[in-house]
Amino acid sequence: MSLFTLHAQDGAARAGLLATDHGTAQTPVFMAVGTQGTVKGVTPHQVHEAGIRVVLGNTYHLMVRPGADTVAHLGGLHAMARWAGPMLTDSGGFQVFSLSGTNRVSEQGCLFKNHLDGREEMLTPERSMEVQHKLGADIVMQLDDVPGLPAPPGREADTMRRSVRWLDRCRAALPPLSAQGRRQHLFGIVQGGLDLALRRESATELVRRDLPGYAIGGLSVGETKHEMQGVLQAVTPLLPPSQPRYLMGVGFPEDLLNAIACGVDMFDCVLPTRVARHSMVFTWSGRLRMRNASHTRSGLPLEPGCTCYTCRNFSRGYLRHLLMAEEILGMTLLTIHNLHFYAALTAGAREAIVAGRYAAFVAEHLPRVAGKGD
Amino acid sequence: MSLFTLHAQDGAARAGLLATDHGTAQTPVFMAVGTQGTVKGVTPHQVHEAGIRVVLGNTYHLMVRPGADTVAHLGGLHAMARWAGPMLTDSGGFQVFSLSGTNRVSEQGCLFKNHLDGREEMLTPERSMEVQHKLGADIVMQLDDVPGLPAPPGREADTMRRSVRWLDRCRAALPPLSAQGRRQHLFGIVQGGLDLALRRESATELVRRDLPGYAIGGLSVGETKHEMQGVLQAVTPLLPPSQPRYLMGVGFPEDLLNAIACGVDMFDCVLPTRVARHSMVFTWSGRLRMRNASHTRSGLPLEPGCTCYTCRNFSRGYLRHLLMAEEILGMTLLTIHNLHFYAALTAGAREAIVAGRYAAFVAEHLPRVAGKGD
Repeated sequence: MSLFTLHAQDGAARAGLLATDHGTAQTPVFMAVGTQGTVKGVTPHQVHEAGIRVVLGNTYHLMVRPGADTVAHLGGLHAMARWAGPMLTDSGGFQVFSLSGTNRVSEQGCLFKNHLDGREEMLTPERSMEVQHKLGADIVMQLDDVPGLPAPPGREADTMRRSVRWLDRCRAALPPLSAQGRRQHLFGIVQGGLDLALRRESATELVRRDLPGYAIGGLSVGETKHEMQGVLQAVTPLLPPSQPRYLMGVGFPEDLLNAIACGVDMFDCVLPTRVARHSMVFTWSGRLRMRNASHTRSGLPLEPGCTCYTCRNFSRGYLRHLLMAEEILGMTLLTIHNLHFYAALTAGAREAIVAGRYAAFVAEHLPRVAGKGD
Repeated sequence: MSLFTLHAQDGAARAGLLATDHGTAQTPVFMAVGTQGTVKGVTPHQVHEAGIRVVLGNTYHLMVRPGADTVAHLGGLHAMARWAGPMLTDSGGFQVFSLSGTNRVSEQGCLFKNHLDGREEMLTPERSMEVQHKLGADIVMQLDDVPGLPAPPGREADTMRRSVRWLDRCRAALPPLSAQGRRQHLFGIVQGGLDLALRRESATELVRRDLPGYAIGGLSVGETKHEMQGVLQAVTPLLPPSQPRYLMGVGFPEDLLNAIACGVDMFDCVLPTRVARHSMVFTWSGRLRMRNASHTRSGLPLEPGCTCYTCRNFSRGYLRHLLMAEEILGMTLLTIHNLHFYAALTAGAREAIVAGRYAAFVAEHLPRVAGKGD
């Protein structure tokens, strides 16, 4: 059984199905970020009840704590964190750059200082595959070389081409099955920054390797929404229709709607969970800052008609109280709502694509989800 | 229908039923502390699933934030916090002493500085009743005068007698029904410190007033377990069998077992929830410190055979990882287990009382629950 089946297309927008050894997920899909082996502030059952079907784990965080061998000893990431559905792990490369101390990148890999104890370690393509093999996610990501920001002249091309070489090392290194005996699907990552020629070269090289899926990396790093759109429009037509496309680390609801229009199938982002912990929620009629005094006595749910646990049970007034009192439950309840919103947004997009009315769906919802709610 | 029905007695230990306008709870009962309108770190549904049947709210916290009128506007504490079962609110007096700035106590009441904004306010018996009437709990507590620690000579007697006068003002001030139109049962509080003659005088004065329930206050403040036991043995025989007895702010599992043996029916304490947030759990075979490295690769649940959500789903190794990584979920899952343990402890005690084997139950479990687990 192949990882991806395309069910419907509407313009470039696609509706499909991911099928893994840990069950299926309809696409477009938003994957919740479970950095250290949990989506922050919620139980796996609350994540599932919110409509989330794929959870992401961060290889860097898990390899430094509790360690890949410990996760494997506890049955792998699925069993340890009690997530029965599909999972994806990243390569660890991004956090090596963003979290660890001074690091040096060579053709061999990335030398970094573990941000917990300062110990120097090496992350190579082979090591990333070894760790992800032990964690046991259904989808694993190649290690890529990440240019600094702003990238020095020539560095963008060098890192993109090195990333292709590292992809080949990842493919050679990844065992046929996870440590738990399940299939793992290795995605390559299209790089090249905002240089469309480099992006096309990267995509072409990856597609020649006939991968189970293709990610688009290096976006949502400060470029304009117009620039992001330009990259997606250059890259997605080069990718085969029969494999899923994953836009890494993106983003706002409007970013998802625009990227889906370009043919992207998969997303992940810390945004809905992170902003929830800072008292912001997404609704179909825009964003709400829940510490705002206007909510003090509101008996309304966050979003009238919303079927999430939070909206079925609690008023804005109570939620604001919890946030002002710095009660953990406030963060938990806002996280549940935001996860549900992202799941509903992608489910709504899918339904519109299947019905051949995705453009109308975007025209109706994009201006409102991007605005300020009431 | 009266608040309390006695079902069985075994020595002085009692099994009964609390029946309120928001449902029933079997006794002995441990009430979870929901300080600011939530049991910290868990949803009301998780609290209920853990076996907890009564939740306590802190009047002081709720009156300073979000304010009694806001709670009433949001439907009262039950509706606002989505707790369908019985609730109890304290008088606010204890936090006025422990949290607020310089305060002066007079016959009129307690002048205090709101710990949030420093505003000076007065907590009188009448004000405590007004706030508790608006919050709408099923059981409300009289305002009592709290002696400082150590109590100056004579102060213990003065505060105890003033507390009796304040009880009469509370009885006169409390409206017949809550702001939500439900019955509220006012408990008096037996005071007198470690002076057994004062304790007996206090209990006798309260019983003359034929209250719906009797609390024993001013314990778990540094006295020995032997001293606590002495007070309970002096007071409980003076209390009528047909009303419930509530030992305020107590305590450790072994304290509950000993107090139940003296005829106490109700308990509340922050301990199981607070220590959970500091990585400690209670089990039938003793306490566990979950940051201990010995748990790193343990695939065992916190307590083999435990039916709580945490033990049904997660290993000690994973829980330790969450705690070391300072993930909120770790605190949530330990809180759920500890609440379940306290609910199971009191349910086990009840079953033993009904079967007439409470002494054997205590002999079997007390030494182990008070010790270090494995």
